Amino acid sequence: MTDQRVRATYRIETAFALADAAASMAGEQSTGTFVRVPGETDEMREAHAARVESLTDLGPVERPSLPGSGLPAGGGERRAAQVTLSWPVSNFGPSLPNLLATVAGNLSELKAFSGLKLVDLQLPPVFLERYQGPQFGVDGTRRLAGVYDRPMIGTIIKPSVGMSPAVTAELVERLLSSGVDFIKDDELQADGPHCPFNERVSAVMRVIREHADKTGKKVMYAANITGDIDEMLARHQHVLDEGGTCIMVSMNSVGLPAMKALRAESQLPIHGHRNGWGMLGRSPALGMSFIAYQKLWRLAGIDHTHVNGIDNKFCEDNDSVVASARECLAPMFEPPHPGCEIMPVFSSGQSARQVAATYQALGSTDLIYAAGGGIVAHPGGPAAGVTALQQAWAAAVDSVPVEEAAREHPELAAALGAFKK
Amino acid sequence: MTDQRVRATYRIETAFALADAAASMAGEQSTGTFVRVPGETDEMREAHAARVESLTDLGPVERPSLPGSGLPAGGGERRAAQVTLSWPVSNFGPSLPNLLATVAGNLSELKAFSGLKLVDLQLPPVFLERYQGPQFGVDGTRRLAGVYDRPMIGTIIKPSVGMSPAVTAELVERLLSSGVDFIKDDELQADGPHCPFNERVSAVMRVIREHADKTGKKVMYAANITGDIDEMLARHQHVLDEGGTCIMVSMNSVGLPAMKALRAESQLPIHGHRNGWGMLGRSPALGMSFIAYQKLWRLAGIDHTHVNGIDNKFCEDNDSVVASARECLAPMFEPPHPGCEIMPVFSSGQSARQVAATYQALGSTDLIYAAGGGIVAHPGGPAAGVTALQQAWAAAVDSVPVEEAAREHPELAAALGAFKK
Repeated sequence: MTDQRVRATYRIETAFALADAAASMAGEQSTGTFVRVPGETDEMREAHAARVESLTDLGPVERPSLPGSGLPAGGGERRAAQVTLSWPVSNFGPSLPNLLATVAGNLSELKAFSGLKLVDLQLPPVFLERYQGPQFGVDGTRRLAGVYDRPMIGTIIKPSVGMSPAVTAELVERLLSSGVDFIKDDELQADGPHCPFNERVSAVMRVIREHADKTGKKVMYAANITGDIDEMLARHQHVLDEGGTCIMVSMNSVGLPAMKALRAESQLPIHGHRNGWGMLGRSPALGMSFIAYQKLWRLAGIDHTHVNGIDNKFCEDNDSVVASARECLAPMFEPPHPGCEIMPVFSSGQSARQVAATYQALGSTDLIYAAGGGIVAHPGGPAAGVTALQQAWAAAVDSVPVEEAAREHPELAAALGAFKK
Repeated sequence: MTDQRVRATYRIETAFALADAAASMAGEQSTGTFVRVPGETDEMREAHAARVESLTDLGPVERPSLPGSGLPAGGGERRAAQVTLSWPVSNFGPSLPNLLATVAGNLSELKAFSGLKLVDLQLPPVFLERYQGPQFGVDGTRRLAGVYDRPMIGTIIKPSVGMSPAVTAELVERLLSSGVDFIKDDELQADGPHCPFNERVSAVMRVIREHADKTGKKVMYAANITGDIDEMLARHQHVLDEGGTCIMVSMNSVGLPAMKALRAESQLPIHGHRNGWGMLGRSPALGMSFIAYQKLWRLAGIDHTHVNGIDNKFCEDNDSVVASARECLAPMFEPPHPGCEIMPVFSSGQSARQVAATYQALGSTDLIYAAGGGIVAHPGGPAAGVTALQQAWAAAVDSVPVEEAAREHPELAAALGAFKK
């Protein structure tokens, strides 16, 4: 374990000399403190100190992105840089919680920096001795949903809150008849007294089983089991008992140890909802990129995660969406270790309009393509909405422009007419 | 439960009309979505919609603090505001993980906002039916440490990593002889192969027990048990078996459900380390204030937490430090419910110099005052360092200026000579 190292890459902003600033990050998060302390021997530094592996100057910065930073004596010019640090895993053991305290602990409060964001993370395979990674991933999810060679088409139950279990099940019944492959709870819907989890899941699964009996297609329903640990385990069991095939967890709400505990017991794919990630990811100067973030959760055991969508209604730009999605499908470890690939979930204002760009960016159909309005607001009804999305995906895979494909497919033509963006 | 409401206050920044922007936050996080959806009835809105409780215009903003925000048709003037929303608890139940998805979920990614930070949270007492709050708090911690009517003087084991259990115990022995009340592991020190948790705690507790046998004073050692859930429970048991009186947990590393599970089993005060909070708290435009953050963790069961210190070496300003510390001692709930007060921990560059300002700001000695250099770098040695801190606190409580008190106390005089700030 000793010679395996964790690498973490940061975007920093500082008025101090870049090499000094990078060295101070390494010192603060390993053998040192603000200054070299009495007990810090050369042997200890050799074995335990974090190293600056690379440092790239990204040029001057006009003004500090964050408040509270200090200046070197004499001023100094504020610059941005990308720095990669490494640590021996033996400093903390292959433990995700303790890794976090090292790579994402006090660093962002250091006074030398007016910006410090964790942008990537490379973990050595020794972590696989303690963490199981995704249990189902892309292949297992496809097998349970019975959907191959095209994206899974998904939708969400809305309104988020306020419907009883019976009303929720009626809505799900209508959504099932559209031909979707995947339906998820909203992350706001959990286990309130007006829509208790167990009753909701029982009601929803009854219509899903009935639909499966009629059509042979068991639609995957991601039931939001988010809660405390005993609650999540009990809810997982209830979903399993009802014949469900997926559980959803708000990752930021539960934390990595709870996810690990759930993964150890789970017999179902875990749909990792990233709500709240904006608090960590939206600032270019602070927090953690989704690239780094999703690696932690894949190792802990999620099988799907949200990446927003092309031209989404949130504030994330397309480059970031595409980078996140590609990362979900990229291996975290080299063979013979498992790659821990997971299924990216595209959502937020998605319709047939964004399909070609999504396929072009990802080069794969291993994804869940989730649409709300893009399905239920189709002029021909939800079934036509789902058909149009499948037509758009088939066209994209065959390199046929969507407008051209629409000439032969009236559902797709109607979708393009209805959804201008 | 239905009529109890959660209130959350945000600082927002938007170019849209403030009332519309606030209404969109309420809609997105309850019955609505970006637009009113078909199934959203008036009855549903009445029972479940989030409400805008107050809205205060904070004036124009020169430029967007965060990227990715949108503009209304025709432009609009960008302004800051403080907005308080409320939700019926029955939307999600008294569940901290699901509360988080509601008050700190997708909100910060909404395109209408170039800034959105959760600055305060008011939770109704129904949460106490599910969460236990602090088990020891101020009084229980004092009882275990045997320290009354003055702050507990603490210090930290440094270097953070690299010492064997035996070398750590030797260092602790020297620290014990200084007369400190409290010693903590660094958050970087967990359970690596060079300093395994069980061996370290056994070695450290042996010298602590020996010191207690000789002096009658059992120093509180906050052993960093941060890890996965089974690991934390096993480590808690080991600390208990060795006669330890405190466990330390990195809150961001473990998440609220793991803390709740630990609290349910714990027989020791939980020292909540906030490393990583800077990622959430440092930007004025994004994330979560410590005021809001610490309430979640108090409810989940911590007994102490870090608030930085006056004139600290990090980037946090003194107003923020003081507000955080006062909040730890302020009740979260009205009687007859428990207030869930906890002990604030001051640290980072603390010496006798900051004592008067700390007491003036807090108006209390219910705190842990932790110093590293402020103790071990005292010219008269660590024991003189601890004595000087106690002298400074006695003077502060008696409203005697520290320079005046130093005339009668050589240790304090030496501290003021050595620590210029």
